[in-house]
Amino acid sequence: MKFVTYRPKQFVLPYRTGFMLDEHVIDLQSAYQKLLTHTEQYDLAYTVHTLLPSDPASFYALGKIAFDRAKDAVAFVMEEQIEVEKWSPEDIVLGPPVANPSKVICIGTNYKDHVAEMKTNIPECPVLFAKFSNALIGPEEPIEKPGATEKLDYEVELAVVIGKEAKEVATEHALDYVAGYTIGNDVSARDLQKRTPQWLQGKSLDHSTPIGPWLVTTDDIPDPSQLALQSKVNGKIRQSSNTKHLIFDIPYLISFISNLITLSPGDVILTGTPDGVGFAQEPPQFLQKGDIVSLEIEGIGKLENEVMEKE
Amino acid sequence: MKFVTYRPKQFVLPYRTGFMLDEHVIDLQSAYQKLLTHTEQYDLAYTVHTLLPSDPASFYALGKIAFDRAKDAVAFVMEEQIEVEKWSPEDIVLGPPVANPSKVICIGTNYKDHVAEMKTNIPECPVLFAKFSNALIGPEEPIEKPGATEKLDYEVELAVVIGKEAKEVATEHALDYVAGYTIGNDVSARDLQKRTPQWLQGKSLDHSTPIGPWLVTTDDIPDPSQLALQSKVNGKIRQSSNTKHLIFDIPYLISFISNLITLSPGDVILTGTPDGVGFAQEPPQFLQKGDIVSLEIEGIGKLENEVMEKE
Repeated sequence: MKFVTYRPKQFVLPYRTGFMLDEHVIDLQSAYQKLLTHTEQYDLAYTVHTLLPSDPASFYALGKIAFDRAKDAVAFVMEEQIEVEKWSPEDIVLGPPVANPSKVICIGTNYKDHVAEMKTNIPECPVLFAKFSNALIGPEEPIEKPGATEKLDYEVELAVVIGKEAKEVATEHALDYVAGYTIGNDVSARDLQKRTPQWLQGKSLDHSTPIGPWLVTTDDIPDPSQLALQSKVNGKIRQSSNTKHLIFDIPYLISFISNLITLSPGDVILTGTPDGVGFAQEPPQFLQKGDIVSLEIEGIGKLENEVMEKE
Repeated sequence: MKFVTYRPKQFVLPYRTGFMLDEHVIDLQSAYQKLLTHTEQYDLAYTVHTLLPSDPASFYALGKIAFDRAKDAVAFVMEEQIEVEKWSPEDIVLGPPVANPSKVICIGTNYKDHVAEMKTNIPECPVLFAKFSNALIGPEEPIEKPGATEKLDYEVELAVVIGKEAKEVATEHALDYVAGYTIGNDVSARDLQKRTPQWLQGKSLDHSTPIGPWLVTTDDIPDPSQLALQSKVNGKIRQSSNTKHLIFDIPYLISFISNLITLSPGDVILTGTPDGVGFAQEPPQFLQKGDIVSLEIEGIGKLENEVMEKE
């Protein structure tokens, strides 16, 4: 199942959670309301706003309960062939699958070949750094390049979205805490990232970090350890690898982090990027206005964004 | 004016915003409702929950509007000697003045003498790193020391709380974007902080970072550039300095950050710590179970927390 956030193009409304049915978007709350009325649960239908919140932040904060209700709604729509409002792609804008996570935790140097190209060392434990939600944009928004950087770079990464509170989780249970997966572009201003010993200022620029296009639930990706991923700039392949090459795999990362920092529903983990970033090209190739960055991960889809100069 | 967050000890209720009147806490929303009914604005009184939200996150997200209403409420209570419910300190628990900021941005190596004791270099621009809100605790909660660290350290810091959205702000206008100031203890697990090149995992441990005891508004601290600050462990002075020794001062920091990362109401900037941290004692002195860490900043007050082993 693919969850999206969307808003109709013609209205200035907040993003709502939806799901992809073929090429169309169905509103999750509306579908759930149809299910409740169809099964004559009128009292529940009346409180659908709290049972299945339409705003993505509340939806993800509700965690597993919301996902289960959403799955019921989707199953109902698909099985019963019920009439629900369908949005065509051209009538809506997709937002980031998670708009305001309390944490975006990124993993540095987590593919061996990328460690080599960055001329650094294989880490003995995961390298954690942060982005804040100001950085996140959706699949249809441009990556903003501010005047402060001349060295903007792309990084394709498998993004894990947490589905329920994870505190001191063991590796063998770690995947139970995942809501699903999406694609993340850990866009990095190399000059700002490296001008001080801490990377934050080059990693959390406003509207720099696309995630999307949707969240694919763990039903569809039960095992994230064998997913091909690649990046292209203007159609030319730059990165091509597979999550099997992660130094620290997804279960290990969730367990490691959750033993230090409690993870909340909606939190995002960007799991690291393979070799082939612009910084390591010879000569280095940084992102310029008008460049199209296109990322693909097996089983998820494609995340494509244009680079725009910040006004 | 001093804003707090509090909850009555006898109820398991969410934290509410209040203000300090002498030794007592007055509920801000209740006081504002009294003002509205006293001035016969009954329609507004009916919607006081949205006009002056009681939960701290919504209160700070409303920004300057909420602060202005709060000031009206406080002025009304003080001038009119109106009967309002007063909470005695022994009947309530104070929480962190800002419980769920979207960002906690910390400044590293921002006092010259601390740069020297950490054997690092004077930075050419501010060193930014992150904490997440999972780390924040209030003035009456214990600092949690998990088994993962043997080198837990204190750092007294002036904490700036943002009052309105700040994007590309000039230095000369920067203080207009501040709601107020509080005390922060940038507790750091030195072993976890330094085992990878990025500090996050040593800086954002669950329930590690006290802030408080209250937010002092800019009415009472128009100029944050001359405030004495100190830390004590078990009554013995460890750090003693003044914000006049900051390498990058508050207006510069706000301007610098806001040109890269838009700041939102309620966001917290921890502005750096002076020399005297435990790591730099000879021999090093790290925090142990039962230690009392007591921080003071001129014009704000005292923030005192006990260290507890995490269960």
